[in-house]
Amino acid sequence: MELSDSESDGRFTVAFLGPLGTYTHEAAYKRFADHAHYLERKTIADVFSSLSPSVPLGVVPQENSTFGSVIETCNALRGSHPGFVRGEVLLKIDHCLLVRKGVKLDEIRKVMSHEQALGQCQEFLATHLPLATLEKSTSTAAAARALLDNPPECAAICSQICATLFQGLEVLRQGIQGETMNFTRFYVVAHSRETVMPFRHPLDGKALVRISAPKLPSKSSSTPRSIVQLLDSLRLDVTFIDRRPSVSLEPFHDVYFVGVCNLVDEPGRSGEDLWSSWTSEVDEAAERVRQMGGDIDVLGVW
Amino acid sequence: MELSDSESDGRFTVAFLGPLGTYTHEAAYKRFADHAHYLERKTIADVFSSLSPSVPLGVVPQENSTFGSVIETCNALRGSHPGFVRGEVLLKIDHCLLVRKGVKLDEIRKVMSHEQALGQCQEFLATHLPLATLEKSTSTAAAARALLDNPPECAAICSQICATLFQGLEVLRQGIQGETMNFTRFYVVAHSRETVMPFRHPLDGKALVRISAPKLPSKSSSTPRSIVQLLDSLRLDVTFIDRRPSVSLEPFHDVYFVGVCNLVDEPGRSGEDLWSSWTSEVDEAAERVRQMGGDIDVLGVW
Repeated sequence: MELSDSESDGRFTVAFLGPLGTYTHEAAYKRFADHAHYLERKTIADVFSSLSPSVPLGVVPQENSTFGSVIETCNALRGSHPGFVRGEVLLKIDHCLLVRKGVKLDEIRKVMSHEQALGQCQEFLATHLPLATLEKSTSTAAAARALLDNPPECAAICSQICATLFQGLEVLRQGIQGETMNFTRFYVVAHSRETVMPFRHPLDGKALVRISAPKLPSKSSSTPRSIVQLLDSLRLDVTFIDRRPSVSLEPFHDVYFVGVCNLVDEPGRSGEDLWSSWTSEVDEAAERVRQMGGDIDVLGVW
Repeated sequence: MELSDSESDGRFTVAFLGPLGTYTHEAAYKRFADHAHYLERKTIADVFSSLSPSVPLGVVPQENSTFGSVIETCNALRGSHPGFVRGEVLLKIDHCLLVRKGVKLDEIRKVMSHEQALGQCQEFLATHLPLATLEKSTSTAAAARALLDNPPECAAICSQICATLFQGLEVLRQGIQGETMNFTRFYVVAHSRETVMPFRHPLDGKALVRISAPKLPSKSSSTPRSIVQLLDSLRLDVTFIDRRPSVSLEPFHDVYFVGVCNLVDEPGRSGEDLWSSWTSEVDEAAERVRQMGGDIDVLGVW
């Protein structure tokens, strides 16, 4: 039903880490507003696996300024067809402590939230709720909704909007994250590299590549080269380097997710031509890495 | 009392992520056997903060081959005096599903463990216990002990040794980790760089440095240099690169933990002279990074 709606009103479908009321929902809406249908998914892996010609785009959290990279997103990007990153959205995060109406701070025995939010609020939790049990949930909004099925001495950490989405809940404390400046960056992921973007947006001049860690060189062999040589041969500005175990069965074999950007041309331009030209530049960088004996995939250009 | 014991019998004290029966305990024992007193600590941060002249050494998990780096250890190493890494221990991990005697698999409603162990067993959990609530505990052994205070329909993921440490528990399933080859690497951390190691051990020819991510260079400024240039100027073999948000208030400012090794000389040698010579080599590499305008600290040599 949703797809035919989508076809009839000209809107495209965007999958996001749901339910309604998550920060990812907020980020997706910030980017696509009323131009899109929003399709809630239970996990980050579900967002990736729901990408298809009829669900061309998805939005997932990538990194928080306090707590670091989102491991589920890294893990999804280790797969063989993880989709193709075509954009990013930056959002300021303000966490609230949500409870059933009337519950007081000293009555709380359990705090539920996504592990990222629990991590971001660990200072508040250690100071004000040192004895509370912490329980991971699939999203901040799922934690809010779970308050209704739990005893009253529970709390959820989530966005303020959840207090209006679910009846009988109220905000007990606001802005409980550790750092005053707390931002999360989200990726806009397309079904494939060839997906035509339904929504024109200025080019950021960024890209994401995945490089398989070479085995350490020994005195006797000249290839494969070290990860530093491979990074160097990109000849692009590297904005971050993230390491995860690879999905291979070999223990301690890693893949690196490397963010790069184009500083020569200023960002903020738009149009498919500019995107194609920046894509070619990234492809050429990847080819240089391959010529050094490196194993590299381009996972996104935006 | 423990310290005077330690003085009288010539044994030194090693703090570890407790309680008794954790994999960290097993790793510490693998390295120091009966030469040490073992001091259990509740968290990885507690192990670091208990280091002192009378508790000269600690053992903490650093990385698992399936689940990746241990974030609490990375975070502790971001501080200003985190101790100094003087060794590593590699341990094969075999996770068990522990329950109160007589409890069957289909009765389990909640599974408790350290988040690393929950992550390592996620495939088993998704297949056999898809409806069970997952609860993070401070350690695998704490989860085992908590079985005694919880309703019978709970399980813990932990080492097999826990079934003998706590009465009334039994192993329901063994080897439930996702990958057949599951290893964890542990760091041996000394109170300071000057701590005299009480236990002679062959030199591994490894080191750990922390490099502050430079701001991205722009066309107009030549310094600070990019992270790739800084890594390159180490002129050492890089075994891994891990990124964490720095403890500064600036959003998205990172530090990198970089493992390096010495491939020119074969590992397996011992003695303070060899350690001093390898230390000098690492110090010279750090000095090269500083001359490039980089901010670097040597966090360990072993």
